[in-house]
Amino acid sequence: MDKKALVIFSGGQDSTTCLAVAKAKFKEVHAITFEYGQRHEIEITCSEKIVKAMGVASHEVIKLGKILKGTSPLISDNKLGKYDSPEELPTGVEPTFVAGRNILFLTIASNRAHVLGVTDIFTGVCQEDFAGYWDCRQDFINEMQKAISQGIHGNNDEFTIHTPLMDLTKAESVILAKDYLKDDFESVMGMTHTCYDGTFGGCGKCHACVLRDRGFEEAGIDDPLWKIRKR
Amino acid sequence: MDKKALVIFSGGQDSTTCLAVAKAKFKEVHAITFEYGQRHEIEITCSEKIVKAMGVASHEVIKLGKILKGTSPLISDNKLGKYDSPEELPTGVEPTFVAGRNILFLTIASNRAHVLGVTDIFTGVCQEDFAGYWDCRQDFINEMQKAISQGIHGNNDEFTIHTPLMDLTKAESVILAKDYLKDDFESVMGMTHTCYDGTFGGCGKCHACVLRDRGFEEAGIDDPLWKIRKR
Repeated sequence: MDKKALVIFSGGQDSTTCLAVAKAKFKEVHAITFEYGQRHEIEITCSEKIVKAMGVASHEVIKLGKILKGTSPLISDNKLGKYDSPEELPTGVEPTFVAGRNILFLTIASNRAHVLGVTDIFTGVCQEDFAGYWDCRQDFINEMQKAISQGIHGNNDEFTIHTPLMDLTKAESVILAKDYLKDDFESVMGMTHTCYDGTFGGCGKCHACVLRDRGFEEAGIDDPLWKIRKR
Repeated sequence: MDKKALVIFSGGQDSTTCLAVAKAKFKEVHAITFEYGQRHEIEITCSEKIVKAMGVASHEVIKLGKILKGTSPLISDNKLGKYDSPEELPTGVEPTFVAGRNILFLTIASNRAHVLGVTDIFTGVCQEDFAGYWDCRQDFINEMQKAISQGIHGNNDEFTIHTPLMDLTKAESVILAKDYLKDDFESVMGMTHTCYDGTFGGCGKCHACVLRDRGFEEAGIDDPLWKIRKR
């Protein structure tokens, strides 16, 4: 078993799955959560509950404030799209794209990793999400890994960025989470927050909820959040 | 003449030289200055005076707060090294190194560039500074250029990171600044701030002052700050 890892942790389904994978593979797991001017504090609250339930060596909530600019409804007053089914989702770059968000998260993560003496960083990005988020693709991760390694250590591969969900469908992610969380799956997944609208349990209509719902449906597993949503 | 550029601008000698180069080559030049928990506000004050004197399309001071951690005296209470001559400067990575600083500056710059519709970014990093700052080398810049291009645009070369000082000695930088600033050299360079100690005019003993002094001496040009320092 390897030693230390750092997980970029939002309190959502994907980063919670990553945390479970990291905990199985590394002895000492640290988590960082970003407050970046997103509309709702619920992500922070959920992240704190989950790390408490799962156990981590340290958890830091990093308050970035509104340091990223753009038109994404996640960081501005622009209206969030609502969809009734996956077929309605827009193609191309989703309006919720925040330019540079994962670049920023990985940058700060590389600073904290350096301070903690960690070289393995986990992120739950997934290029199967179909949202056109450029910074969720493996091609980006490959370049970012080299950039942070060069910028902090002067070589191309000091840091390893682990992306266990990169090529999984949402259904495969649900199954992976069940495999790693085992008996805790129901309770831990029931604490996660995915919805862009900030509704705990999910609004069921935003891009993130529509994809999450389809994932659980295709996996043939009930999302514990459905009970809360009274679906 | 190209259209738009964005300059990462600290109000120091190097970024001021970059701003002069960018203004000669681009029609519309924007500047951003970072407040990142550095010990003194003087950098911000100087940057504001200089952009006012030189003229820019926009200038944003971005307050990052203390989002980078580490032991550098620039962002902590650790003591700053003082040297009497360039020969005394430490070899290897200087204690003032802030892990991830230029990665962070370029990341935020890529977000602002995206919002402003700019693809040309200037930074005054220089691998001749001998401070062992990994994120001041061309190898890092090459990787970072790919990472931000991939993360925001999905290709390897959407952004160009210009580093006009990369391979220049400090003396050559002084001459470059004189070539571009022309009659404004004395007044504009007299507004710049380089000293790590936060003393306007320079303490003359910190790593940054020692290198700046040697640069002007080797170029055979008086630093306008010397009058203020009553050297």
